[in-house]
Amino acid sequence: MITRYADPRVDAISCDEAKVKRWQDSELAVIEARVNLNLAPRNVFETTKAILEANPCDIGWWLRREKETQHDLTAFIDERLRYIPPEMQAEWHKDMTSYDTEDAAFALALLQFAAIVSEDLEKLIGLMKGFALRERYTLMLERTHGQWAKLRSFGGRILTWLAPLLFAHEQLKRAAANCRQSRISGAIGNYGGGLSPEIEFEALRILGLTPFYGATQILPRIVQAPLAQSVRLVGEALGQIAVDFRLGARSGKSLWHEPFAKEQKGSSAMPHKKNTIGTEQIDGMLDLLSGSEASVLRSIQTWEARAIEQSCVERVAWPDLFHEILRMISVMHRVLGGMVIYRDHMLQEIQDSRETYASDEEKNFLALECGKRGIEFETAYRIVQLASFCAFKPTEYWAKVRETRPSFDLREADELLQESYNAPFKQSLGIKEIIKKGKLFRVEGLKATEKDVASWNVFLSEIFSGADTRARWDALFNPSYLLKGEGFLFSKILG
Amino acid sequence: MITRYADPRVDAISCDEAKVKRWQDSELAVIEARVNLNLAPRNVFETTKAILEANPCDIGWWLRREKETQHDLTAFIDERLRYIPPEMQAEWHKDMTSYDTEDAAFALALLQFAAIVSEDLEKLIGLMKGFALRERYTLMLERTHGQWAKLRSFGGRILTWLAPLLFAHEQLKRAAANCRQSRISGAIGNYGGGLSPEIEFEALRILGLTPFYGATQILPRIVQAPLAQSVRLVGEALGQIAVDFRLGARSGKSLWHEPFAKEQKGSSAMPHKKNTIGTEQIDGMLDLLSGSEASVLRSIQTWEARAIEQSCVERVAWPDLFHEILRMISVMHRVLGGMVIYRDHMLQEIQDSRETYASDEEKNFLALECGKRGIEFETAYRIVQLASFCAFKPTEYWAKVRETRPSFDLREADELLQESYNAPFKQSLGIKEIIKKGKLFRVEGLKATEKDVASWNVFLSEIFSGADTRARWDALFNPSYLLKGEGFLFSKILG
Amino acid sequence: MITRYADPRVDAISCDEAKVKRWQDSELAVIEARVNLNLAPRNVFETTKAILEANPCDIGWWLRREKETQHDLTAFIDERLRYIPPEMQAEWHKDMTSYDTEDAAFALALLQFAAIVSEDLEKLIGLMKGFALRERYTLMLERTHGQWAKLRSFGGRILTWLAPLLFAHEQLKRAAANCRQSRISGAIGNYGGGLSPEIEFEALRILGLTPFYGATQILPRIVQAPLAQSVRLVGEALGQIAVDFRLGARSGKSLWHEPFAKEQKGSSAMPHKKNTIGTEQIDGMLDLLSGSEASVLRSIQTWEARAIEQSCVERVAWPDLFHEILRMISVMHRVLGGMVIYRDHMLQEIQDSRETYASDEEKNFLALECGKRGIEFETAYRIVQLASFCAFKPTEYWAKVRETRPSFDLREADELLQESYNAPFKQSLGIKEIIKKGKLFRVEGLKATEKDVASWNVFLSEIFSGADTRARWDALFNPSYLLKGEGFLFSKILG
Amino acid sequence: MITRYADPRVDAISCDEAKVKRWQDSELAVIEARVNLNLAPRNVFETTKAILEANPCDIGWWLRREKETQHDLTAFIDERLRYIPPEMQAEWHKDMTSYDTEDAAFALALLQFAAIVSEDLEKLIGLMKGFALRERYTLMLERTHGQWAKLRSFGGRILTWLAPLLFAHEQLKRAAANCRQSRISGAIGNYGGGLSPEIEFEALRILGLTPFYGATQILPRIVQAPLAQSVRLVGEALGQIAVDFRLGARSGKSLWHEPFAKEQKGSSAMPHKKNTIGTEQIDGMLDLLSGSEASVLRSIQTWEARAIEQSCVERVAWPDLFHEILRMISVMHRVLGGMVIYRDHMLQEIQDSRETYASDEEKNFLALECGKRGIEFETAYRIVQLASFCAFKPTEYWAKVRETRPSFDLREADELLQESYNAPFKQSLGIKEIIKKGKLFRVEGLKATEKDVASWNVFLSEIFSGADTRARWDALFNPSYLLKGEGFLFSKILG
Repeated sequence: MITRYADPRVDAISCDEAKVKRWQDSELAVIEARVNLNLAPRNVFETTKAILEANPCDIGWWLRREKETQHDLTAFIDERLRYIPPEMQAEWHKDMTSYDTEDAAFALALLQFAAIVSEDLEKLIGLMKGFALRERYTLMLERTHGQWAKLRSFGGRILTWLAPLLFAHEQLKRAAANCRQSRISGAIGNYGGGLSPEIEFEALRILGLTPFYGATQILPRIVQAPLAQSVRLVGEALGQIAVDFRLGARSGKSLWHEPFAKEQKGSSAMPHKKNTIGTEQIDGMLDLLSGSEASVLRSIQTWEARAIEQSCVERVAWPDLFHEILRMISVMHRVLGGMVIYRDHMLQEIQDSRETYASDEEKNFLALECGKRGIEFETAYRIVQLASFCAFKPTEYWAKVRETRPSFDLREADELLQESYNAPFKQSLGIKEIIKKGKLFRVEGLKATEKDVASWNVFLSEIFSGADTRARWDALFNPSYLLKGEGFLFSKILG
Repeated sequence: MITRYADPRVDAISCDEAKVKRWQDSELAVIEARVNLNLAPRNVFETTKAILEANPCDIGWWLRREKETQHDLTAFIDERLRYIPPEMQAEWHKDMTSYDTEDAAFALALLQFAAIVSEDLEKLIGLMKGFALRERYTLMLERTHGQWAKLRSFGGRILTWLAPLLFAHEQLKRAAANCRQSRISGAIGNYGGGLSPEIEFEALRILGLTPFYGATQILPRIVQAPLAQSVRLVGEALGQIAVDFRLGARSGKSLWHEPFAKEQKGSSAMPHKKNTIGTEQIDGMLDLLSGSEASVLRSIQTWEARAIEQSCVERVAWPDLFHEILRMISVMHRVLGGMVIYRDHMLQEIQDSRETYASDEEKNFLALECGKRGIEFETAYRIVQLASFCAFKPTEYWAKVRETRPSFDLREADELLQESYNAPFKQSLGIKEIIKKGKLFRVEGLKATEKDVASWNVFLSEIFSGADTRARWDALFNPSYLLKGEGFLFSKILG
Repeated sequence: MITRYADPRVDAISCDEAKVKRWQDSELAVIEARVNLNLAPRNVFETTKAILEANPCDIGWWLRREKETQHDLTAFIDERLRYIPPEMQAEWHKDMTSYDTEDAAFALALLQFAAIVSEDLEKLIGLMKGFALRERYTLMLERTHGQWAKLRSFGGRILTWLAPLLFAHEQLKRAAANCRQSRISGAIGNYGGGLSPEIEFEALRILGLTPFYGATQILPRIVQAPLAQSVRLVGEALGQIAVDFRLGARSGKSLWHEPFAKEQKGSSAMPHKKNTIGTEQIDGMLDLLSGSEASVLRSIQTWEARAIEQSCVERVAWPDLFHEILRMISVMHRVLGGMVIYRDHMLQEIQDSRETYASDEEKNFLALECGKRGIEFETAYRIVQLASFCAFKPTEYWAKVRETRPSFDLREADELLQESYNAPFKQSLGIKEIIKKGKLFRVEGLKATEKDVASWNVFLSEIFSGADTRARWDALFNPSYLLKGEGFLFSKILG
Repeated sequence: MITRYADPRVDAISCDEAKVKRWQDSELAVIEARVNLNLAPRNVFETTKAILEANPCDIGWWLRREKETQHDLTAFIDERLRYIPPEMQAEWHKDMTSYDTEDAAFALALLQFAAIVSEDLEKLIGLMKGFALRERYTLMLERTHGQWAKLRSFGGRILTWLAPLLFAHEQLKRAAANCRQSRISGAIGNYGGGLSPEIEFEALRILGLTPFYGATQILPRIVQAPLAQSVRLVGEALGQIAVDFRLGARSGKSLWHEPFAKEQKGSSAMPHKKNTIGTEQIDGMLDLLSGSEASVLRSIQTWEARAIEQSCVERVAWPDLFHEILRMISVMHRVLGGMVIYRDHMLQEIQDSRETYASDEEKNFLALECGKRGIEFETAYRIVQLASFCAFKPTEYWAKVRETRPSFDLREADELLQESYNAPFKQSLGIKEIIKKGKLFRVEGLKATEKDVASWNVFLSEIFSGADTRARWDALFNPSYLLKGEGFLFSKILG
């Protein structure tokens, strides 16, 4: 991964020094296991361990030796042998094949990567939980299909970001647990003449691992694949938040914005710009991450007891996957931690929605009245639909603009723009009043005839003749009514 | 593909009847080629052709026979042999292997699929060209990063949808041309004892095809892969339009909307909804299409002179790819053909932008003035940036709302919502006037100090003291100035 | 999915009739829940249920109505309302949005799909377990990197096919358990005015499901994504077996072959062919399956509380995914159930390997001897490497053929082929004897000098001067020694 | 890309120094264009160019400035401004947005990347052409479905590796040509107040580029996508060769092997191993490459006139794509350049095939005889099929081994292995003689009855009673007959 996006903790795990250290730990664990099983003298283990730990692997020597053997693990074996007394050399890498060393070591690396992701995720989740609680009673409009839908609290919106992330985190932890499985079972996985299930079990136990039975020369990569898949899921959960963030930050009545530094520039050309560059990067990073995941999944299979296709994928795609997800988490943490919230716009947007935010409850209210009067259920739907279309009817001036296409040249556009600055806005009644007062009128584009409309207005006048009905109607629009179920979700999700 | 999304023209090409007909055409072409090269008597060809065309393949018999031979092409050969006079049988499928028949036939199918896509694309492109021309002078705000950026015409926006589509169409046509290449070169592609380059060339020529040299038992699938890749590109171009459409149709000052039928329902719960279901389906269809493309690309390779992995992919993923792209084109055609345009909102959005739509030109205007006065270039940027921040400063009431988090319970939210309906809106000056009149003021979040602001206001007063300067300044905001370059694009792209 | 590959059980779940039946079950569960919570009279539920179950949904009417409403669920609601007495209509779909109905129903469908896969997998696993046991003592050579590696039992090989499949099955079961989670929480997931956590919990309980808290209008698709991911893993495990099968079935000393029917034809051109068409289809099917999985994963995200992109993906890619995996399982079952095993070739291949199958144990044997004599560890490696190169040295005639490139024309090739039929084969000693007898000789391509070789031969003569050493050496090559660890694996994996 | 796999030429193009140099070239090209169009004084260009080229960008200063502006291009603009005389600053980056600079520069980088790939590919293609010619008359068996199929020359096999690579290279060159298109058209692509089509055209011309009309703030990424797609195709072509290579190098009668260095070690456990590690790495590298391509394709779309998602993808996935393909080409070059060819095994394998390599010609030969005698066509097929099954019948001893499953314990396996070393091999007649001499016999597994077999043997005796027929029959098996069509392919493909 390029420096710009690299997480130093991932590099610290995937660097050569750390890698050969893990190899050494694997090798020593096998010797220690033999000692514990009375298959080798304890001093061989103790001396070898002491010498090797006192003399770290010489990376330069090792890489030069690899050029000759064209095999990195045998080069490592040779490098280490330089320090081991001849009489103890036979215990070194005894009966082992390269992947007896490497697979145990690689499992350790994956566990370390996963632990870092988990740690950063927990911090982000903590931040989001506090955030949700703080905005527990801030009102906003929720959208479906990009259209204004219903009222919710901003805190409640954050819960919907949080829940998928919690789910993905759960998958990650499960998948990481799989990665505790590894193998030290010889060149084709059946222990051959020298290893044994007992040595394997004990050596892995020393390393904090556990055997996977049925491996070949390598652990079947399918065992680790769910970890990559779960990182993808974490990425998707973050990507979803990023997209929602970008949608909410769009100019107009933007609901929030990314933090913007005092000397920041949004654009070299347009000084007024404050762009959502963080969340956009999260989306781009997900494009990278899904490519890395695809590479890991494509390399699950091998031929027979193994070939080495998966090696380069593991050297590149696995660390990249972790660089990418950690970058996504860190940018998201920065964005959510410093985001500017426009609660004024949230409220203004509710006003702008002309009370359509309760159209579901309105429809059900009217449906009950229909039921009482033997009017078909469907009518309630059609009345509310018509009322909402009425509520958004433009004034005459703007209706004309809507239909006008300047058709000659750009000067016509100049004039229209100039003139429009003086055009009056006047909002018609909202849906709440249109229905309560029986002020429906026919609109193009719906099937309702003049006669339908007239009869519906009569029907509405009847319903709303009573003060009690009007009061019940008005109560529909209260946040405290519409959001009464949210408290339960807060307690369930925030725990 | 399920019926809901299937294009009947694709089914007509991929159905069994059409497939065996193409096989028969391949077989007959080889016989005809031998006749043309004086390697077989003409009457064998004529008789065989006449008999077989008079007796179409019995699909039921063929499928039953396939159950026995476990080989669809040999079953077809057997079915057809039932009609061919014994003395002419030796010429039937002579020296040929299955894929001598199938590959030629499959090339024909791909060419037919591609032709349909091309035809539908041309119609859509025609529609879009007319559309762009009609909206040549309709003004709108363009966005970058979701934020208001600069002025453009709506027609100009459509050009930016069109250009990638034209590019993708060009790739499709090129890739389809590759698919004219096929092979009839025997069981491992070196003609063996019975076929020859001459027979291959002539038979393919009869079918409208041309040889690919260096094939094995099959045409290397890499030759056809670019067709799948180009379909993906067409899909991406359509997906881009769909996303832009959805963004423009979002509630608020929506710029347009999908056609909505008189009896249509947007939601079973919320009668007020008009959702962008068409363009959303286009996006979903692209998810399917990219899966189909991935399958085709994964099946390019085979082992040595061939294995049959790619067969099931070709039976499923190729037709699906075409069903999917045709569905995307057809939905897009319906959406763009019937879309409702809110030119009033386009204009209102320009007003809402407080003249930031020309911030680039403003900055350059001031930069020249800075240059004249030896003030550093950077100052122009900072003035325009500050002015735009000033232009969006909320009133005191709403500024307070912005900072307020209702913190006790939902009834507090009830009250806030109620109260806010009566709160006054008052827009501050736009950026044009703020600068012209030297009305900058300090804002939190930018580095400029009170002293900076004061000195800048003095600087601005000086600049705009002359009527001439003010007139040049005002002219910056005219569409006819800002869009003067668009005419060139219309002529280049619409041709 | 096309008929050729479709599993009728999947079609029976995804067909319209089954789908609307599940929708009806969802709707009725909500009414029943309200009854159980004393929010509605019991007779409304009982009557509605009785009437609707007596009158199944008229698919034709429903689809025609969908054309009008452009909304399949509202069309269904309307269709069903035709049968419900007016006074009970208000309880029908009350306070619900479409996805309150659909998401619960979709969860049920996924659970059914997963159950079928699980069932078929269990049968395949059962077959493979029995198979492994039966071939517990059949010997074969295992390969790594396509090269002969070490001895194992054929049964042991089957264990290495089985273990990844068992792992993948485990993932599938876990992922299916996730799919029990669904939601009935209203248009944006916060229950709105009419639903409640209690109704949701009870209705889902009736359906055998459980709530996911933090959903929007839809269950976040991330909850179901692991099911698609686990199907991919099952596919990879099967694909791995298929590749191994194909490799083992290659001409030469093929180890096994697919079942071949009495009237089967391998090729229309080459009557001698018996091709691995089943396992090749499994590989191709995995190409399709990975495309379907990619589509599902690409459609996890949506905008805000939902858009409908994922709908077409769910209608197409999810059923396809199950068709594909079931096809893979069924073909694999047929192939493994009827495979022909060439135990003769397995044994012959062991002979052909010239005892390199124990080169690891040989090296370790010699390394101990080196240790005793203060010779460096590395020497053991180099001796065995050289011995194995010696063991494969061709005779003089064939060595010459190896270096000869016929260079004039094809008639030269005719002659060479003719002549070679009479050329003698003579195998040199195997590695076991070369070492035991100190018969190393220098070969091109290894660094060992004549002097090295001479000194090594001396060293070997010394070692093997004792009968005891020779006996221990010979014992290295016994299967009973080399496979002694396999018994443990059988008991662990077969349970 | 990690150092192990990185190509330094790619790094030299993608490093910061090279990148800002390209940015500077873009900026200067715009000034020069204005000069050429008489829109700016020549000395501004000349002075600015001279000063900037004398003072390369200070990378450290630039990166620190980016931290403040959070915008790399504006930081670059600021860094450069430090050197430009104040009176010339207004021409610097005048009227331009960041991507006016970056997109032109990025096009240049892509062209450089593509040129390197093309150059390396041409060298590899040259190597392969020479190789094909040299092995023009070396005989080998070709396989389909992993099974022995027909005779071909080894040179002819190389042609089938070459042809897809030539095709892919052609696609790459076409796609690179697309990348000459770029844009310098302002913040939303319509030139705004300051740029113009003339300036864009001239500046791009100076850089060796050409305008794409219909761009937004950025060049639509779809224009560059085919380059990534074509790199994928080159990768697939190489991957196909790698797989074929690995298949041919499998132990048994391996056809070739990768070069093996004198001190190389194939395995830390098994000294006898010579593994196909190069071609396996090529396959793994393709897994990486297809992930990088997927990332590039996923980032084609953006929102409206642009967002910045694609930036991180371009910084990472594009260079990685080129690192990966160059690594694949270089490893392939090394493998093919140094490969060891076992022509002896190629010939032995032909012998082992028992003349089934001409089964197609045999069948056609007999079919003609059937025709003469009014025997149905199908008979010829069945005779050759049976003959080939006969040719592979094992001896009695080995037939028994084939059916035997050691069932008690491993010592039984010890004995069987021991005993089998003494078992005789005796090959039955090949298919050529079985047919010529009418020596068919019934086999299990084919439908032919004893009676069928008897009558066929009679039929064969009749046919082959004449010496002439026998001579024509024998001639079928000559390479010079079977490969007569190959010469044409050599001349067509090698040109």
